[in-house]
Amino acid sequence: MNLEDKDIAVSLKNINSFFTHLEADAAVHAKTLFFKKLSLKAHLFYGGKMTTMPKAALPSAEWFNVWYTPGVSSVSTSIRDNNKNSFSLSNRSNLVAVVSDSTRVLGDGDCTSPGGLGVMEGKSYLMKLLADVDATSLCIDSKDETGKNSAQKIIDFVLMAQHSFGAVNLEDISQPNCYKVLDELRKRAIIPVWHDDAQGTATILAAGLINALELAYKKMETVKIVFFGAGAANITACDLIIKMGADPKKIILIDEKGPLNKNRKDLKGSSDFYKQWAFCLQTNPLNISEVDEAVKGADVLIALSKPGPGTIKPKQIKSMNDKAIVFTCANPVPEIYPHAAKKAGAFITATGRGDFDNQLNNSVCFPGILKGTLLCGAKTITDNMAVAAARAIADFAKKRGITSDNIVPKMEESDIYPTVAAAVAEAAVKEGVASVYLDPKAIYERTKADIVKTQAAFNLLQERNLIEPPPLEIIKSALKETLEEMCAK
Amino acid sequence: MNLEDKDIAVSLKNINSFFTHLEADAAVHAKTLFFKKLSLKAHLFYGGKMTTMPKAALPSAEWFNVWYTPGVSSVSTSIRDNNKNSFSLSNRSNLVAVVSDSTRVLGDGDCTSPGGLGVMEGKSYLMKLLADVDATSLCIDSKDETGKNSAQKIIDFVLMAQHSFGAVNLEDISQPNCYKVLDELRKRAIIPVWHDDAQGTATILAAGLINALELAYKKMETVKIVFFGAGAANITACDLIIKMGADPKKIILIDEKGPLNKNRKDLKGSSDFYKQWAFCLQTNPLNISEVDEAVKGADVLIALSKPGPGTIKPKQIKSMNDKAIVFTCANPVPEIYPHAAKKAGAFITATGRGDFDNQLNNSVCFPGILKGTLLCGAKTITDNMAVAAARAIADFAKKRGITSDNIVPKMEESDIYPTVAAAVAEAAVKEGVASVYLDPKAIYERTKADIVKTQAAFNLLQERNLIEPPPLEIIKSALKETLEEMCAK
Repeated sequence: MNLEDKDIAVSLKNINSFFTHLEADAAVHAKTLFFKKLSLKAHLFYGGKMTTMPKAALPSAEWFNVWYTPGVSSVSTSIRDNNKNSFSLSNRSNLVAVVSDSTRVLGDGDCTSPGGLGVMEGKSYLMKLLADVDATSLCIDSKDETGKNSAQKIIDFVLMAQHSFGAVNLEDISQPNCYKVLDELRKRAIIPVWHDDAQGTATILAAGLINALELAYKKMETVKIVFFGAGAANITACDLIIKMGADPKKIILIDEKGPLNKNRKDLKGSSDFYKQWAFCLQTNPLNISEVDEAVKGADVLIALSKPGPGTIKPKQIKSMNDKAIVFTCANPVPEIYPHAAKKAGAFITATGRGDFDNQLNNSVCFPGILKGTLLCGAKTITDNMAVAAARAIADFAKKRGITSDNIVPKMEESDIYPTVAAAVAEAAVKEGVASVYLDPKAIYERTKADIVKTQAAFNLLQERNLIEPPPLEIIKSALKETLEEMCAK
Repeated sequence: MNLEDKDIAVSLKNINSFFTHLEADAAVHAKTLFFKKLSLKAHLFYGGKMTTMPKAALPSAEWFNVWYTPGVSSVSTSIRDNNKNSFSLSNRSNLVAVVSDSTRVLGDGDCTSPGGLGVMEGKSYLMKLLADVDATSLCIDSKDETGKNSAQKIIDFVLMAQHSFGAVNLEDISQPNCYKVLDELRKRAIIPVWHDDAQGTATILAAGLINALELAYKKMETVKIVFFGAGAANITACDLIIKMGADPKKIILIDEKGPLNKNRKDLKGSSDFYKQWAFCLQTNPLNISEVDEAVKGADVLIALSKPGPGTIKPKQIKSMNDKAIVFTCANPVPEIYPHAAKKAGAFITATGRGDFDNQLNNSVCFPGILKGTLLCGAKTITDNMAVAAARAIADFAKKRGITSDNIVPKMEESDIYPTVAAAVAEAAVKEGVASVYLDPKAIYERTKADIVKTQAAFNLLQERNLIEPPPLEIIKSALKETLEEMCAK
């Protein structure tokens, strides 16, 4: 393997070419390893990813009297007299709090309070660049006096902090706290609360399913759907997909103890797993209790469970119906690799990863959903707003053409964000939760203009070296270490 | 009054010329009114003052795999394995939480939870432009079940949030909660906590006093000092000034009930006013109980009490010693206007305002103090670090020359920020609270380079109209309304 400077592009566009000597599984593993190694070095180089910047001009030092004391006094009293003014007089109306207690950080489990900072700053990075939404990372300590992570503490924290933000994005909170926090905050918070792991993932899964079914000439109302994993995302996706027409009687959810059914005494009456129990009653009418039997004959398999490969077996895919749709979305490694699922007969595969076809990436959803929500001053994000987003995403892809390896928009298709924002704001008005009435076209145009401006600023700062390019050296050393580690195996 | 376009500069540099037809007091009042009116319009125009921005490059969409999943997993696990890594792998080490419950917003009292957002965003605006410190505004609801603002709730909130920040700047919290919160958090928080209203103000008062005494040929150790107002800032200033050599036996503090002395039964044993009671015992050995008597013969009067004018009377100034030093810092209007104090015999006057000579502006202190604290990874900000900052500020002014109307640096003297950062970091090392050992010169150079980069970015965005100039129209209408309102009086 030749690691001369000229071979490695800082853009990483030729990164696959360094792993061509490896078997398919190993190549994918190597690439993941490389991204991890580079990520550590790159975060260290920049000292994180996000910064703050004034957005109001300072024509001279006299203007400090306007932006701060004595002038700012009128802003304080105006907000005091009507709290709603805080949305127009501060950055609050474009600002999202990304709140996590880091107890379930992507595929890495409990990473301690500050452990989620890389992910939350990543979320802020995406929100800003993709949809011009500002965000603050709040990785909090949710442990109570007994040392247990407490849903109530997260709820109290958000209720205290909510007056500084336009919306809250909950992230990477372990079960069952994540449900409790979301359910309670949706009732009590005065600003919209979104749980992206659950609702964002559910939205993109739903969008992908719409288009996969279209390509398989199958109907939402009649297909058999198996959810592999019964965590926050799959539970929410199942809910959303039923709202979109799927038949609960043709759905089976599977958790680590097997298929959910009425005989699951471990779930019955549990205050932690009340959502799962509801599905025990509503789905799987034959009370199937074996995983292989549950998967057999399914048209759709939606997996969000343990990282693979090997969590789902090829023989299970083989047992599915013709034109099987297989979404395996565990992070960072799917339950079964797409190439293995295809080999076992899958018609359409999708994963959560950007380095495979059909990335079911909530990054396509949440920036536009949050932007639309903020722009229309929605009090909450209803399920129908998420359904509207899913349909808008599916539609967007259909309009520009879908194939079995291209069922949903990619992050780079930048028009998806204003499109989703407009659809979500339109739904908010229909649902009666909007407080600002702009027609969808106006939301689309405003979002688009904001994105263009932010990207122009970001590009300008990069061009002028005020944001330096990543040094080639860190890319080379990450690659070298990766290849050595693969060799040693 | 002619309000033709050509007359009004967007820079506001000729703003004084519009009020020359008014008496001195009225002109000052008109200018404050104008800044308030313009502030409201300008905040509305920009929708607040601060935004977020990526600081790490994105050479291509492939890099989303580095900044987010799957690469970012290594950042999560690295921080999980050693929480200290969160400082180098996230933006945390340059990020300050500006926390307020908005119960005492500048001169405007309780403004309800979101009421402080304009001020806190202003703080972030200053920190970024002056010392390249990133900040997040957290205006929180500190009310407990009984509806009372609770110090404990603020403490709990900060302890939950601290893992996402490098330092905390408390702001505009009413007495006595502000002391309780600061005292408790200085003990329990794992990151430094600064209370700018108290400590920042105390630092600049101390710096101003050093140079005023120099010009008056008087000594800290022998002067009689009267503190008018016994709130958080004056209490802290009194503490700091005693640490710097002032004689407590020659100090008298005055609150709304008169001079603090051993007969003040209202303060004795109070859990809310334990700091004031300590001064009852330590100062004012003659137990003077009349305000006029207390002020009589004082060399220095430091007022931080009720907005004036009229809170301090000319006859009180007249009763002071020769070469009287009079700092009147109430916001937004000083207890006595400088011109009135001078007329009554004051030798040096100073206020908190930028539109008079000798602005004792904590904006000269906190950006550099926080930057130095963050760069040396200090665990806390000790009183000696504040003293070091005060001495550095006084020194800086002395080196470039001081006169009675120019005793401290102005915000525009940009070298003050790296100078203060270096002095504070040096003191932190001496105090044994630093965790990163850089010599003062390195701290100075790093701070300077960071500021230059941030200001270059800000200027570039303004030049390219990615941050628009404020419209002349809002300046004109603010001025028109101001002049009409002054006329109607």
